[in-house]
Amino acid sequence: MFTVGIDIGGTKIASALVDQHGQLIREKRVPTPANDSAALTETVVQLIREMSEGHTVIGAGVAAAGFIDADQANIVYAPNLSWRNEPLKAQLEAQLDIPVLIENDANAAGWAEYRFGVGQGTKHMVMLTIGTGVGGAIIADSRLLRGGFGIAAELGHMRVVPDGRPCGCGQNGCLESYGSGTALLKSAKELANSNLPQGSRLRQLQDDAGELTGNEVYTAILERDPGALGLLSDLGSWIGQAIASLTAILDPEMVVIGGGVSASGDLLLNPIREAYLKHLPARGFRPELEIKAAGFLNDAGLVGVADLARKALS
Amino acid sequence: MFTVGIDIGGTKIASALVDQHGQLIREKRVPTPANDSAALTETVVQLIREMSEGHTVIGAGVAAAGFIDADQANIVYAPNLSWRNEPLKAQLEAQLDIPVLIENDANAAGWAEYRFGVGQGTKHMVMLTIGTGVGGAIIADSRLLRGGFGIAAELGHMRVVPDGRPCGCGQNGCLESYGSGTALLKSAKELANSNLPQGSRLRQLQDDAGELTGNEVYTAILERDPGALGLLSDLGSWIGQAIASLTAILDPEMVVIGGGVSASGDLLLNPIREAYLKHLPARGFRPELEIKAAGFLNDAGLVGVADLARKALS
Amino acid sequence: MFTVGIDIGGTKIASALVDQHGQLIREKRVPTPANDSAALTETVVQLIREMSEGHTVIGAGVAAAGFIDADQANIVYAPNLSWRNEPLKAQLEAQLDIPVLIENDANAAGWAEYRFGVGQGTKHMVMLTIGTGVGGAIIADSRLLRGGFGIAAELGHMRVVPDGRPCGCGQNGCLESYGSGTALLKSAKELANSNLPQGSRLRQLQDDAGELTGNEVYTAILERDPGALGLLSDLGSWIGQAIASLTAILDPEMVVIGGGVSASGDLLLNPIREAYLKHLPARGFRPELEIKAAGFLNDAGLVGVADLARKALS
Amino acid sequence: MFTVGIDIGGTKIASALVDQHGQLIREKRVPTPANDSAALTETVVQLIREMSEGHTVIGAGVAAAGFIDADQANIVYAPNLSWRNEPLKAQLEAQLDIPVLIENDANAAGWAEYRFGVGQGTKHMVMLTIGTGVGGAIIADSRLLRGGFGIAAELGHMRVVPDGRPCGCGQNGCLESYGSGTALLKSAKELANSNLPQGSRLRQLQDDAGELTGNEVYTAILERDPGALGLLSDLGSWIGQAIASLTAILDPEMVVIGGGVSASGDLLLNPIREAYLKHLPARGFRPELEIKAAGFLNDAGLVGVADLARKALS
Repeated sequence: MFTVGIDIGGTKIASALVDQHGQLIREKRVPTPANDSAALTETVVQLIREMSEGHTVIGAGVAAAGFIDADQANIVYAPNLSWRNEPLKAQLEAQLDIPVLIENDANAAGWAEYRFGVGQGTKHMVMLTIGTGVGGAIIADSRLLRGGFGIAAELGHMRVVPDGRPCGCGQNGCLESYGSGTALLKSAKELANSNLPQGSRLRQLQDDAGELTGNEVYTAILERDPGALGLLSDLGSWIGQAIASLTAILDPEMVVIGGGVSASGDLLLNPIREAYLKHLPARGFRPELEIKAAGFLNDAGLVGVADLARKALS
Repeated sequence: MFTVGIDIGGTKIASALVDQHGQLIREKRVPTPANDSAALTETVVQLIREMSEGHTVIGAGVAAAGFIDADQANIVYAPNLSWRNEPLKAQLEAQLDIPVLIENDANAAGWAEYRFGVGQGTKHMVMLTIGTGVGGAIIADSRLLRGGFGIAAELGHMRVVPDGRPCGCGQNGCLESYGSGTALLKSAKELANSNLPQGSRLRQLQDDAGELTGNEVYTAILERDPGALGLLSDLGSWIGQAIASLTAILDPEMVVIGGGVSASGDLLLNPIREAYLKHLPARGFRPELEIKAAGFLNDAGLVGVADLARKALS
Repeated sequence: MFTVGIDIGGTKIASALVDQHGQLIREKRVPTPANDSAALTETVVQLIREMSEGHTVIGAGVAAAGFIDADQANIVYAPNLSWRNEPLKAQLEAQLDIPVLIENDANAAGWAEYRFGVGQGTKHMVMLTIGTGVGGAIIADSRLLRGGFGIAAELGHMRVVPDGRPCGCGQNGCLESYGSGTALLKSAKELANSNLPQGSRLRQLQDDAGELTGNEVYTAILERDPGALGLLSDLGSWIGQAIASLTAILDPEMVVIGGGVSASGDLLLNPIREAYLKHLPARGFRPELEIKAAGFLNDAGLVGVADLARKALS
Repeated sequence: MFTVGIDIGGTKIASALVDQHGQLIREKRVPTPANDSAALTETVVQLIREMSEGHTVIGAGVAAAGFIDADQANIVYAPNLSWRNEPLKAQLEAQLDIPVLIENDANAAGWAEYRFGVGQGTKHMVMLTIGTGVGGAIIADSRLLRGGFGIAAELGHMRVVPDGRPCGCGQNGCLESYGSGTALLKSAKELANSNLPQGSRLRQLQDDAGELTGNEVYTAILERDPGALGLLSDLGSWIGQAIASLTAILDPEMVVIGGGVSASGDLLLNPIREAYLKHLPARGFRPELEIKAAGFLNDAGLVGVADLARKALS
């Protein structure tokens, strides 16, 4: 028995048939019709049908960025898509003969790490997804913490600096304004456009490419450019400080770091660990958690939401 | 069928026989032999026996301030008592013929509010206990969140100001350094010892009493002294800002404010609510939680731990 | 004997003939040819000639926003004008037969207040000009403090929040990001676009006007709208906190508050004074300075630079 | 023609006969009778007489830590001595036949650096004295900036962190709470008492010495212990950030770093310079100042106050 997982991104929709061990039996990616609500729903229906063909499929899970309601039936708000208060579960179930579950993509990815990735064996785990923004997932006592209104674990919006940098959420000083890929790129551009010596390599890359993007910053990081590493270390420090606060609140056994920026590996993880230890309350009187890089690369959302759909049926 | 609840404070031990509705059948308070580990254990044993007399008692719960391990068997560290890594569960069960459960006192109080107090009907609730320190309890999906090592919900130690005021936990900028009764008293003393006009009433109370204590500050609050109200409002603002961050993490339906400082009622709750709303990420795109004063006065720990003992057996 | 004062703003050039008591004998305002460096210089020459006609004029002073060099001869950088490293003094003196002095406009305004405005009688005075940005002037021991490179008293760029709001200067957390009219307007727009009850009046004004500008915010302030007053009070609090730090550094007898936002009078000055007192180091062990609204409305730059030109010749 | 300089410290009084080039002709140090106001005055009289013997002495200068009034006649408040509102100038002149000038010791030290030390040739200079506290001196346009009430340049009390660490002055977040030797020692003790690996050397030194003092910390710094260097670098970073703000206010050509902690040389100066550059407003559009270690070791206060006494007479 299988479930289908769908992960709707801003540019691509990934789909897969997934077994009970989180293994992909088959998969397919198509472009996202981001501005056409009806076409988007129709594409999801077709992908679920196509993935199901010839197998016993007991349910499907759909992951997307945004606020999903507590019943996991409606997409309340999806920043990259045209959906607002979209009753997606009902729409899909009306066209398919299997139950459908909707989940936030960062939650789904966290669940995948907990069930099949580096988080296996823990009961209390937190995942931070460091990409364009900072997403999060919380596993508390072996269950995904969804919150009273379905929007828990928006870890990018815990505040780290009072009266700090402005955030897209309308507040100031959110973790996302200091610890996201967007924040890293902004700092890199500032450094490139300064005349500080440690900005020389980023300046050169900017001059060559015409504009600085995540690619150039990642290149500089891979080259161990001190300027880019300094910025990555700053980012890691903010993440580590946030983990210290999260420890006081959630007391997880492990924090998993995923998302595009986590590809930097220990160059990112070491500053995270160092800042976590430095800022841990009651250090020495309590166990210290593990901080690990995510095990999945791209399929975490897919696998996680397929497994959550399976779990809801069991 | 009943359970016994024991709440070990720094100066008094409260005990009670509690029914399945959280009602106290009988209760007794005795002084805490804080510096004598053996006498303390013996007192607890006697109280459980005394409370049990003549009734069918299926278990007992013991609440204390401090770090309790994940198995709820050992008191790892209790700041006010002589216990360090004390195997309290085993010690008590060796002398009693009922199972015993150990719990952190703030967790127990939060559970009481969730089960029998203002939190009834919620599934996701947070309690903040504002006393000498700032304690916390998290109910996530109808369960007490204890964390991987048993020490979750130490909400007084989430950081609110980077490089901020020093905290007893060894860090800087913890919520407890801004939002506790101790912080309030410290601010009140500073104001009384300044020559600011809004400190005049506190100055007078200090002169009359010889020293400023929580009593004088509470008197000034009850008199609606603008100076004391300003300090209480500052405290409430920090608590409200912390709740905004907690919302991003835990998404509760309700936050319950307990502890001695909460006796100020709306004088405290209004600034909390105002700061919460001002600092809520994505305000307008999400439901807003309720902030309520605790329903229990003194018995929350007792009732909560008795009910947790009952729950563990069911 | 008279001097001519010229104040070059982003949209208008104000000119006047000024006597030794700071009185305007005649004045004229013309549009600023902001994008034509040569036309701008020519306009200034014409205005000085016109103002001088029929009187004994011993020198002229020209004020503009920007960095003026230590010799007061060159405009190094003027954000609103086309001048970069413009040798303005030499250019003007080549066409006129009187000496010319160049000065930063905020410095000139501060000098006017010190000599003829509310600062008369002091020896140590600071002026903060709260307009689009936050400008400053420092009078130390009866002399204008110009700095080693001519760019002292850029008081809008002292830092008030580490890792704080981004500033146009490339840094984060500058006073200007919290205490300027621009910051006030930004906060007002956020409040109007929230659904907070205290934003209702600003929301209404925004709906009526299509867009919120300084005019609408000022209207709301004059109406004593609690929402707008709250924002003004926040702004004042940041200014007052900065004055407390400036006191530790400069120990002035008086701080003068000027600029467009200061038209709010005590609605702004009271929160400034309150925050100053609250944050004053060693309060009670030192005298407290006076905080006053500027005496001049629009002519401070004009009068100040004319007097500085006179002083340079005496 | 000579002047006598007296520098009253908490434990020793240094006295010297000084010529017009800042050279010491003779000098003498005696213990400070700190708790006996009359004996202290008498000791100063005797030292001035003794230093003067056989030479033409035209005046004397007395330096002490504390608030000196604007007339330089009274010691308003001296934290380490028994003087409160002491009319020291009148008392000394009544017993001596030469004019006496009183000055704050950090101001005197700054003046010595400006006149005879590394600040020679500048017109705008700031000195930061990093010892037990953080003291300051400001030279603006070749004159010592004393302020309207005589207590300018208390640079340790500009605020660097809102709601930050408590300071002895009654405020929070003052530079002194982050950038003084006292703050360094406090951080070193915390590190030694943690179990962080980078604290191992400090822990060892603490175990050997029984207690950690400035000597042990300095030893660790000289050994290039990474833990101690990290703390020194943090301290330097706060100082550098403060200099960036001071630049916006005072625009000096040079900042001189003195005091006991400055003995660490470039180990301290490099982090200061780095942080200054990183936090400099409008970097790239303005000249950058020089940051230099003080030229004087112990005699700066003595030499400075002697020269200020000479200057007052000329």
